[in-house]
Amino acid sequence: MSIITPKPISGFPELLPDAQIVFNRCLQIVRETYELFGFAPIETPAVERKEILTSKGGDEKEIFALTRLFTRPDESPETDLALHFDLTVPLARYVAQNKDKLVFPFRRYQMQKIWRGERPQKGRYREFYQCDIDVIGRGSVSLFTDAEIPSVIYQVFKRMDIGHFVIRINNRRLLQGYFEYLGVPNAQIGEVLRAVDRLEKEGRDKVRRELTEKIGVAESAADDILAFIGNESASDTDAVLAKIQASPAMSNERFAQGAAELNTVIAGIRSLGVPDDYFRADLSIARGLGYYTGTVYETQLIKYPELGSICSGGRYDDLASYFTTEKLPGVGISIGLSRLVIQLIEAGVLKTGPSTPAPVIVTTMDTSRMADYLKIAASLREAGIATEVYFDKGRLGDQLKYANRKGFKIAIIAGENEFAAGQVKVKNLITGQETLCEQAQLLAHVVG
Amino acid sequence: MSIITPKPISGFPELLPDAQIVFNRCLQIVRETYELFGFAPIETPAVERKEILTSKGGDEKEIFALTRLFTRPDESPETDLALHFDLTVPLARYVAQNKDKLVFPFRRYQMQKIWRGERPQKGRYREFYQCDIDVIGRGSVSLFTDAEIPSVIYQVFKRMDIGHFVIRINNRRLLQGYFEYLGVPNAQIGEVLRAVDRLEKEGRDKVRRELTEKIGVAESAADDILAFIGNESASDTDAVLAKIQASPAMSNERFAQGAAELNTVIAGIRSLGVPDDYFRADLSIARGLGYYTGTVYETQLIKYPELGSICSGGRYDDLASYFTTEKLPGVGISIGLSRLVIQLIEAGVLKTGPSTPAPVIVTTMDTSRMADYLKIAASLREAGIATEVYFDKGRLGDQLKYANRKGFKIAIIAGENEFAAGQVKVKNLITGQETLCEQAQLLAHVVG
Repeated sequence: MSIITPKPISGFPELLPDAQIVFNRCLQIVRETYELFGFAPIETPAVERKEILTSKGGDEKEIFALTRLFTRPDESPETDLALHFDLTVPLARYVAQNKDKLVFPFRRYQMQKIWRGERPQKGRYREFYQCDIDVIGRGSVSLFTDAEIPSVIYQVFKRMDIGHFVIRINNRRLLQGYFEYLGVPNAQIGEVLRAVDRLEKEGRDKVRRELTEKIGVAESAADDILAFIGNESASDTDAVLAKIQASPAMSNERFAQGAAELNTVIAGIRSLGVPDDYFRADLSIARGLGYYTGTVYETQLIKYPELGSICSGGRYDDLASYFTTEKLPGVGISIGLSRLVIQLIEAGVLKTGPSTPAPVIVTTMDTSRMADYLKIAASLREAGIATEVYFDKGRLGDQLKYANRKGFKIAIIAGENEFAAGQVKVKNLITGQETLCEQAQLLAHVVG
Repeated sequence: MSIITPKPISGFPELLPDAQIVFNRCLQIVRETYELFGFAPIETPAVERKEILTSKGGDEKEIFALTRLFTRPDESPETDLALHFDLTVPLARYVAQNKDKLVFPFRRYQMQKIWRGERPQKGRYREFYQCDIDVIGRGSVSLFTDAEIPSVIYQVFKRMDIGHFVIRINNRRLLQGYFEYLGVPNAQIGEVLRAVDRLEKEGRDKVRRELTEKIGVAESAADDILAFIGNESASDTDAVLAKIQASPAMSNERFAQGAAELNTVIAGIRSLGVPDDYFRADLSIARGLGYYTGTVYETQLIKYPELGSICSGGRYDDLASYFTTEKLPGVGISIGLSRLVIQLIEAGVLKTGPSTPAPVIVTTMDTSRMADYLKIAASLREAGIATEVYFDKGRLGDQLKYANRKGFKIAIIAGENEFAAGQVKVKNLITGQETLCEQAQLLAHVVG
């Protein structure tokens, strides 16, 4: 028989157990936090009809299409299916399809793998987890929802313990109003937003050239834009809000509405107890996507700016316009968890530990007492303590070596002498300390 | 713009939030129980190379192949990828690929979606969750592992609370030895096992005809086989073990070895505290797959025999013979969770409840006090109580109607009077009872 030597596929990450345990802990933190805010889980199939995925002009999308590998000659090859490339299109399809069965506002979270059918490139994932929340309304969604989302983001990353981060908050209506006020024609506002969005990446001079030379914004207007969105003059949230309030652009209705929204959102975030050094109003956040219409969010890890935004989102006017005529506005965010966690493991911010989820191992120096070892393990598990029993034949030293390699914290040891005395040894594998205790007291010693 | 009306795709199940909450609870029970026994999580990509998936003679397999939907003319279409159809082949590939980084015995669990690229058929899932555990050894795996697996199965389904079930345990070596003892030629033993495996489904007469007419087993041998594996003469585990011990086939070495193994496994299961009415030695369990070489398991829900085996598995001699020359024996089981849970929800065995994971809703009768409502919610969440705030404008009656539709258990109510008195109302939405309490005492009232 010929042997196929397996090798990794570019873009499809896979972890060893110690890293997988860390990844799963992060997944669980996201899940619990989303639920803490009353978001309900849904899960859509990985597979959608191609027409659903490409509804929004899909040919620039990176999509993996499916075909059945083996079909009988009398069977249809079924070529209309593909893997989803995000969780937003499936959400739109789900809400449109079930809108008479759902209760609105529909607060859902969704944590699933998505696939990008793009060519293999170093550092690009083609399969990864996205963790999304969205609140979808029928006709409208309260602005207080926009204030709640940063509180969710704060709780998620605080619990994940990945260092200081800042949630940057802006309002696209405010920016649009500002550009209107400066006399930028409506048709150019989208382009201006996309140019402004690249400020951090490309720098002031390049964006200014784009605004003036490529888009045709007047020199003085370009300077006003860069002065308004720049952070030089207003480094904290209150200063930014004051700058907005003092702006002559308040005469523009859209600007004033955006300003009022941003004020409400910031006040709500504070009421929810998010500390001031974990968020800020930041006029330079524009989000390139045309999709967003009001509040927008980005989140940066202070020590790892090179990771880019680790959680982004915002408010949109209409989720599912391709699938229903009913207007379904919403607010949402997305965390690309695979990239974030794997990079933070590589950077040592998230530390890997044991390759077992069990803290306790029951060693088995006397195989004739296996029934007793099994009973000890059963009693620990009964008390909710994850426990493995060492089953291979081996000297105690080898068994403890195995225990250390896997990262167990406690080894239970008992041989002829201990059993005769109704006792058992509890060895702390971190300190090396051994305690002899009555078998009946084992649980207290393991928990203690 | 033309609207695409979304409709379900046959074989790709999707749940509404209330059912998804039940499904996720079951997933979590399986995960926690697997970890309680010290199984470590791994997750392999959904995507494998076709050559990996088809290594075991794949053309009878139901596989979804991938292609990139849009490729530029200068790009390779990359046609060597496909979706995994089980978790065993990916495990074999993973272990072979990482065998020098893993600690053996390698105890892993894996809970992922798998895909079957088969034609749409009523009642057949083409995307579903499998929840597997396996213990893989380098060269050997202790027989006590075979005893531990039924304890895992017992704990999973007991916690899932789906009614009485029985784990049926047998040993293929024992059956093979028995057939040898009866003089069945080696080349026919596989066929005989597959015929015997169909006993429950096809009945005694049909299997007897298959044995004698199709396979060519002697009439008297066929009668002996049916008498031996039939449950008529030995209904409980001890009676089955006694029948084996008394069998003249004990003169056959393989039979005797299988008998010894089965005895050890049953004794271990008892030491681990699995109650006698939740498992039994059952000589009719053969598992058709050639793969298994020793202990085999099937699990039946007593009230729903039509579900078939809800958890099956067994021992195999060599996991990854297609990917490495090293011998990697193992023991494992698989639960097809999607089918099980969805059918049990439909049967009313698993009951759906709220469509929100939050027990508490903070109503907002006075929108000018929104900051206070947000603070109340934040304090509840701080204490770990999942909480939603009602953000839409609406009379209290409408807010409570919304709360009841989603299935909240407690509503917090406060208006001008309550705020003036520093109080808040806690309404139990199940009993209708309202309690007025000091704001500072809220937490105790919600938890209590």
